[in-house]
Amino acid sequence: MPDPASTERYSYLGPAGTFTWAALTRVPEAQGKEWVSVNNVGEALHDVVSGRSVGAVIAIENSVEGGVSATQDALASIPDLRITGEYLVPVDFVLVARPGTALADVRVVSAHPVAYAQCRGWLERTIPAHAHVPASSNVAAAHDLLDGAIADAAIAPPTIREQVDVEVLAEHIVDNPHAVTRFVLVGRAGRLPERTGADKTSLIVELPHEEPGALLEMLEQFATRGVNMNRLHSRPIGDALGRYRFVIDIDGHVQDERVADALLGLKRFSPKVIFLGSYPRADRQAVEVTSRYDDDVFIDARDWLRGLLSGEPE
Amino acid sequence: MPDPASTERYSYLGPAGTFTWAALTRVPEAQGKEWVSVNNVGEALHDVVSGRSVGAVIAIENSVEGGVSATQDALASIPDLRITGEYLVPVDFVLVARPGTALADVRVVSAHPVAYAQCRGWLERTIPAHAHVPASSNVAAAHDLLDGAIADAAIAPPTIREQVDVEVLAEHIVDNPHAVTRFVLVGRAGRLPERTGADKTSLIVELPHEEPGALLEMLEQFATRGVNMNRLHSRPIGDALGRYRFVIDIDGHVQDERVADALLGLKRFSPKVIFLGSYPRADRQAVEVTSRYDDDVFIDARDWLRGLLSGEPE
Amino acid sequence: MPDPASTERYSYLGPAGTFTWAALTRVPEAQGKEWVSVNNVGEALHDVVSGRSVGAVIAIENSVEGGVSATQDALASIPDLRITGEYLVPVDFVLVARPGTALADVRVVSAHPVAYAQCRGWLERTIPAHAHVPASSNVAAAHDLLDGAIADAAIAPPTIREQVDVEVLAEHIVDNPHAVTRFVLVGRAGRLPERTGADKTSLIVELPHEEPGALLEMLEQFATRGVNMNRLHSRPIGDALGRYRFVIDIDGHVQDERVADALLGLKRFSPKVIFLGSYPRADRQAVEVTSRYDDDVFIDARDWLRGLLSGEPE
Amino acid sequence: MPDPASTERYSYLGPAGTFTWAALTRVPEAQGKEWVSVNNVGEALHDVVSGRSVGAVIAIENSVEGGVSATQDALASIPDLRITGEYLVPVDFVLVARPGTALADVRVVSAHPVAYAQCRGWLERTIPAHAHVPASSNVAAAHDLLDGAIADAAIAPPTIREQVDVEVLAEHIVDNPHAVTRFVLVGRAGRLPERTGADKTSLIVELPHEEPGALLEMLEQFATRGVNMNRLHSRPIGDALGRYRFVIDIDGHVQDERVADALLGLKRFSPKVIFLGSYPRADRQAVEVTSRYDDDVFIDARDWLRGLLSGEPE
Repeated sequence: MPDPASTERYSYLGPAGTFTWAALTRVPEAQGKEWVSVNNVGEALHDVVSGRSVGAVIAIENSVEGGVSATQDALASIPDLRITGEYLVPVDFVLVARPGTALADVRVVSAHPVAYAQCRGWLERTIPAHAHVPASSNVAAAHDLLDGAIADAAIAPPTIREQVDVEVLAEHIVDNPHAVTRFVLVGRAGRLPERTGADKTSLIVELPHEEPGALLEMLEQFATRGVNMNRLHSRPIGDALGRYRFVIDIDGHVQDERVADALLGLKRFSPKVIFLGSYPRADRQAVEVTSRYDDDVFIDARDWLRGLLSGEPE
Repeated sequence: MPDPASTERYSYLGPAGTFTWAALTRVPEAQGKEWVSVNNVGEALHDVVSGRSVGAVIAIENSVEGGVSATQDALASIPDLRITGEYLVPVDFVLVARPGTALADVRVVSAHPVAYAQCRGWLERTIPAHAHVPASSNVAAAHDLLDGAIADAAIAPPTIREQVDVEVLAEHIVDNPHAVTRFVLVGRAGRLPERTGADKTSLIVELPHEEPGALLEMLEQFATRGVNMNRLHSRPIGDALGRYRFVIDIDGHVQDERVADALLGLKRFSPKVIFLGSYPRADRQAVEVTSRYDDDVFIDARDWLRGLLSGEPE
Repeated sequence: MPDPASTERYSYLGPAGTFTWAALTRVPEAQGKEWVSVNNVGEALHDVVSGRSVGAVIAIENSVEGGVSATQDALASIPDLRITGEYLVPVDFVLVARPGTALADVRVVSAHPVAYAQCRGWLERTIPAHAHVPASSNVAAAHDLLDGAIADAAIAPPTIREQVDVEVLAEHIVDNPHAVTRFVLVGRAGRLPERTGADKTSLIVELPHEEPGALLEMLEQFATRGVNMNRLHSRPIGDALGRYRFVIDIDGHVQDERVADALLGLKRFSPKVIFLGSYPRADRQAVEVTSRYDDDVFIDARDWLRGLLSGEPE
Repeated sequence: MPDPASTERYSYLGPAGTFTWAALTRVPEAQGKEWVSVNNVGEALHDVVSGRSVGAVIAIENSVEGGVSATQDALASIPDLRITGEYLVPVDFVLVARPGTALADVRVVSAHPVAYAQCRGWLERTIPAHAHVPASSNVAAAHDLLDGAIADAAIAPPTIREQVDVEVLAEHIVDNPHAVTRFVLVGRAGRLPERTGADKTSLIVELPHEEPGALLEMLEQFATRGVNMNRLHSRPIGDALGRYRFVIDIDGHVQDERVADALLGLKRFSPKVIFLGSYPRADRQAVEVTSRYDDDVFIDARDWLRGLLSGEPE
């Protein structure tokens, strides 16, 4: 007998205080429900697939590290998942240490590799001779400081002070003050989120062969229908050097005629197209399309063709 | 009350003996029916539009003069016509004169401008100082020789000897021994000829604006669906210098999925697409398409999309 | 010994009063020089090739008939010609007849095929049952009326009244009141006209093979360098159905970097590129190019590449 | 006074035993010279820039993780570096633990994130409930096992047994048995490696604006010159979501005409092109180009254009 409570559970990369947790606080339908902290993206998605959770919040892109590899590979290999929403969380970090440590004493810095990349410029300027010890999460790095880790300091989110007894050596150490991380809410395939006019559609597409012409041809599937691509990320398929799949976000909803037609073109062209979902944009900014790609234009063309096929005069 | 006999009449650019007449002898359904000789293409097509004739045979292209302008303009401006068949007639001409004339005496040559163009090289080599007087038809030019025309000789089809009392000064004077003229049978819009697998589809397309990019975009509508174009002819629209429409033949039948989809793309893109018909090729050569553009590929993609829209797992 | 007078002679399609003659009156360097009336475009160009004339004025395009076939074919086959200027002449026609003829009596109309095409709409509305007899020139048609031609009326330029004793039955009978014919002045290859900033360049290009992709690829040679095409005309090469050459006008002078680079691309791509010349536009309208295609951009890129090849740091 | 010995030093991501170290053993010119172990890619490249080392070996791509982010970002931001060679190292890992540990006891696995990704499938099947602790290097993870790390086991290269007193719990645990990592040797800009006919050229290119059309236009710079791209990797520029630079490998040497011309096109198009070098392919496989893109074709076109500009007949 399925647990009815399972429909109320959300999985996220914990512990509380991570950016993923911050993203989950922005998901309206998750408020007041059970939140499950997991150790990695694969675990979060398996919770969804198995029905243990109705949704998982996972990081899919940030402005320094690009596409988050594990997420993209998981979405490419686990079937029947759908993205239903996106959430942006500003990136902000502090450098923390055990109480009593001075900035001048810091030699070894613990940080999740993505966080480290986002603060690398600041660290190279401020502590030129530092070494980096990777941590499994932004929050764990701070915890470990008190557990006898070899690191002298850790990069952590500003909320860390409420959770761990550490001292803040420096604030706002992110190199790019405009950095944000993009998270998505993922559920099982089912009814699509409604079309809002400010939607995006996410896809993973493999190319049919390895020539550069194949990529050109894929991009033309969008261009020829006036579909704007706002993200393109290549990921190695993993079976050989030089074979890639592309993680793509386009403007619009699959219920938009031009998007649906582009998907038909892609599907005919590509050996594998994974539809990850159509969902409202985090910024709620309406998609602008020139009138030549309006739904009506597609519908009129179909009516005209139907007339031709039936033998009617035009 | 409509004349039932009208369904049995075919119009052609006469008189008997012209290449158009020769083309009509190749139209199976016209054999044993009434043939009406007319003076120009417009008249032939108006016979069809008005219902006086069920079909008109008109020249649409030859290998020297390219698209026949009057035909192409008439097809672009008279609605609801459909091409239902094509017929190739080899081009062969003789030079004829009033009995008693020697080749060395010839100064003025009468010929239809298209015939003249097809023999120009031979004439320039053989009679370098000749002048050309245009004639309204290949056959009329020969007739006029006996009616006191100023011409000394005329270019005419080889069959002229059976019709007019002229002397042949030279045979096979066509510059290109492989030249053929392409004729089409035109009727009113109605049931489409059946798909044979060796079909072509004719279109007239206007570009949305004057940039070269628009032509590129039009050609991509075909290329992106694997549709081969085997004729492209530009014709000025006539309202301003530099505005063109394109007369296009593509391989395949509008009932082929890839052709239908390309027509949808064209229709959305172009301010005016005229469908002139899908009909069997004169050479009956089967259209070869790589398997990625098979009908099944289009149908599978639509099934897949329908699943996505209904919210089913893939 | 070359005849010094030959440098002062210009050939044109006569007789005086034709549109070609009108175009020649607009060529500044030809005023006060000797003008030679010839019978056809080939003769005019041979005068230039042989050195009999320094220049020939020939019609190259009008807004009803598109590219003038004979001109385009002659330019494609006679080497080492260069266009050095273009001249626009408005198209205006009158219908004339022998004195005493009424419009209602006209059954047969004599006209050059291009003139006929330009007045066809008016004739079909005004004299629905007329027949057309082609004439060798607009002026000859009127002359022939008095020489016992079978025609009842002729299409002629308005200046005909000053030359032939005919009566004008109707004025301004051209269907398109904005129609103009474009003429060019052609000389032997030599020093290029100076770059004025309001130039065009004319080319004839053959495609390497018959696929539609080849045309796409040719157009991309221009698009990728920001070169605007303002005329594209396909002409059958004449050796087989479906093989075309393209007569092309682009904005700019071969001394413009972007044009020179596009010509390099074309030359590498095409089995045959004929450079017909770079010359000032008739309308003297400056060519506008976005700054990314300025000469400087091309020169900077070459300097950068030269540095790379020499092993210098960037 | 510069240290003459510096010309003999090579930097690599240590310690000895890492894959980078294995790559360095494949660099002929580095054998018998001084090897300096550094902590990260930035340090290795700074050694080169400062002149402390003549070369640095760094990982640039592997078949699981795609482009190595830190390397690509460092190459994009440090000027005047040049890649002079590439080296492939097969990926092979063992799972090691403190002596006495059984596979069944393992709960926490320490591994560099890239190594972890490459063994993730094996770990998920074999130790479904494991947790991952990131390590700074494949070798350090094993060392730390003996230093009281919380991890029970570590992923390490097979050579680890010679360096650290650990026990091997499992061998060949890499998910993809064909996985290789690609390393490059990087030096300061200077004389280019000689053209061998089996070369590749590496570039980093920014797009001029954010439309998908810009990517299409970039790819056409290669396609239109017959230049094959064998790697395309997008990296966020880091100043805003959705802005990317592309790390590109193409077939051929900058001294090949078609490559040089493509670089000119790129340079004119892009706000920033970084030339990373032309160097022999690791696999020594000759680049095949259709004859239409041979050096001669480019040289002939330039000769032809030079003739046109000088006013010579063609």
